[in-house]
Amino acid sequence: MTKLWCELAWLGDERAEQGVLIEVDRDRIASVTTGAGPGDAERLSGLTLPGLANVHSHAFQRALRGRTQVGTGSFWTWREQMYELAASLNPDTMFAIARACFEEMALAGVTCVGEFHYVHGPGDMEQAVIAAARDVGIRMTLLDACYLHGGIDSFRDADAHAWAERAGGLSDAPDLRIGAAIHSVRAVDPDSMRVVAEWAGERPLHAHVSEQPRENEECLERHGRTPTQLLAEAGALDGNFTAIHATHLTPEDVDLLAGATVCLCPTTERDLADGIGPARRLRDAGARLAVGSDSQAMIDIFEEARAIELDERLATGTRGLHPAHELLSAATAEGHAALGWPDAGRIEAGALADLVNVSLDSVRLRGTEPDFALESLVFAASAPDVRRVMVGGRWIT
Amino acid sequence: MTKLWCELAWLGDERAEQGVLIEVDRDRIASVTTGAGPGDAERLSGLTLPGLANVHSHAFQRALRGRTQVGTGSFWTWREQMYELAASLNPDTMFAIARACFEEMALAGVTCVGEFHYVHGPGDMEQAVIAAARDVGIRMTLLDACYLHGGIDSFRDADAHAWAERAGGLSDAPDLRIGAAIHSVRAVDPDSMRVVAEWAGERPLHAHVSEQPRENEECLERHGRTPTQLLAEAGALDGNFTAIHATHLTPEDVDLLAGATVCLCPTTERDLADGIGPARRLRDAGARLAVGSDSQAMIDIFEEARAIELDERLATGTRGLHPAHELLSAATAEGHAALGWPDAGRIEAGALADLVNVSLDSVRLRGTEPDFALESLVFAASAPDVRRVMVGGRWIT
Repeated sequence: MTKLWCELAWLGDERAEQGVLIEVDRDRIASVTTGAGPGDAERLSGLTLPGLANVHSHAFQRALRGRTQVGTGSFWTWREQMYELAASLNPDTMFAIARACFEEMALAGVTCVGEFHYVHGPGDMEQAVIAAARDVGIRMTLLDACYLHGGIDSFRDADAHAWAERAGGLSDAPDLRIGAAIHSVRAVDPDSMRVVAEWAGERPLHAHVSEQPRENEECLERHGRTPTQLLAEAGALDGNFTAIHATHLTPEDVDLLAGATVCLCPTTERDLADGIGPARRLRDAGARLAVGSDSQAMIDIFEEARAIELDERLATGTRGLHPAHELLSAATAEGHAALGWPDAGRIEAGALADLVNVSLDSVRLRGTEPDFALESLVFAASAPDVRRVMVGGRWIT
Repeated sequence: MTKLWCELAWLGDERAEQGVLIEVDRDRIASVTTGAGPGDAERLSGLTLPGLANVHSHAFQRALRGRTQVGTGSFWTWREQMYELAASLNPDTMFAIARACFEEMALAGVTCVGEFHYVHGPGDMEQAVIAAARDVGIRMTLLDACYLHGGIDSFRDADAHAWAERAGGLSDAPDLRIGAAIHSVRAVDPDSMRVVAEWAGERPLHAHVSEQPRENEECLERHGRTPTQLLAEAGALDGNFTAIHATHLTPEDVDLLAGATVCLCPTTERDLADGIGPARRLRDAGARLAVGSDSQAMIDIFEEARAIELDERLATGTRGLHPAHELLSAATAEGHAALGWPDAGRIEAGALADLVNVSLDSVRLRGTEPDFALESLVFAASAPDVRRVMVGGRWIT
């Protein structure tokens, strides 16, 4: 049994608690006591959070950082550079890039990553990304993506059944969940979507949804429906579904996503000139929110979380649409649930012992008052403020 | 004579140079040699930049960080919290807050700050902020703001002549320039604007311009002119003028600002729900750009610089409106010029020896290729990547 005493810890409420004793038994939290003294426990100064969930990642895109910022273009010209990189990979280079990327995530407080995986070859790319996360020590949900049309050779399966065969060959492990992904309405036809959704069953099912206006236009032209409507008709939109981006939605789309999770990736959405999604309207309709570093333009979950609010401020002229504790919930419990780990991302007895200890001593956070600790953290912390990270009872940084 | 050998240095061009020898004689750069070997010079690994200019700062607002992120509201409700803080200050607390704020700036690579100063009492607040910057070791341009209408007691002078009397009592020093500021069209009437603009002469003259739509509406209603038109008619808009924000402009406003500098403060503009300004159109019209941390919601000049581009991507759907070297120029040479230091913010013989050495070893920047060093820096660096900072030939961090 490990005893940790947190000067300040966030237990899911509107304010952080001062003086929290956490007992850890192997990989689980055994007990949480508030208003406690440190006694003989190990002291964690600063603010301690549950593990952060990075719900949408394409690890290999870390290798594009900086290099895609030359010249003018759009999402679509960026995509050509991404294809070129993807076509050059093999399992060894995939492992090396993914390992560096997951290490950056771990240092930023990410304890679980949703790897939306569509580079299926050459060789066993699935095992390469699984091994990279395991080597760093973070949990992974591998969202094996069905990709049938467009893209490059290594993305595509022959059909949805060939996809299901590969996905079915992957197994859960204590540090690994297998989930399904429909790459997008561009890459998967409606009949194949249905196959993927049925295969997914109770597993997480993710899909890129309405990231760019052109995607909507083409979908409406071909199918007479929005991407969200198409996914709804394919039976994809249940409580295990996560829509990635969901930037350009109709009011009806918002209602259809009410029971699902929407994963925003604000640093990527600004990098790729996607636009600003209706996060508040989605929340109001009943959708859960999560965040992801997606293209790895940067890896800073605090920046992703605050940008949900700050980008909506730019779009609406209003401050305070999303309180800090809701943004933190998106980055922790809601994110973990969207990845199939409902027992992670929360500091409570029985939960997985995933913890992130953040220093409040940096120039960014000094002067933080306990009553406003969540607001200071969400709106001013930076990834380097993460001091220590525990996954399943083990300190990995 | 100090000799520094930079593994990589930015000399103002589209690419960083490898192997740059910089000789420093007292507070000036004596010579710059490219393609040089290290010889017996002190080695600076990573990327070396000229000093960063933080052109728009209200240092005391650092004390609001986190605390203003509770509840819903707007720019106008935020302003009430800011008034309350300002009314509580005295020279000792002003010094303490400003010193901590300027230290955070120094650690982020800021070698010169434009302090837009309107808290004129009680006591000698001007000397408090001047002493704080001097204590940290960064240069300052004190933009003493004329504030006649609205606000709180300590902001206001009796009239523009009383303002000129106080401003006239302040003197330049080797580490200090005195400039003028028209707080805004809300706070200064047209006749008084003219007095301030005449007083300013060749000194820097700054003004908040069109930060919020309501400011424009009220100005049009009262004067039948936009804030920019009003400032133009008062004779303010010459080459020494810097418009702060300039978020909500008419096409005619953009043309009027062609010969001036526009200082964007993107992290504040998103925090205060101001909106996204027309940075590219301003550049195309001939305006110079600069950046500022303004309300100190965060202090990260790299984030300010990239947000000029990234916010416009959100607004336009286009990538690559502002190349990395132009964004860096805004954060260095153009910013320093707007603060009355045309001989700073550039690595060249005769310039002030202000240097910022950035590590490329962090998880954020590792893998940076020399050919894309500027793009990696601008789009992925964070303030903690700044390793050492030199002001006037002296390492201050």
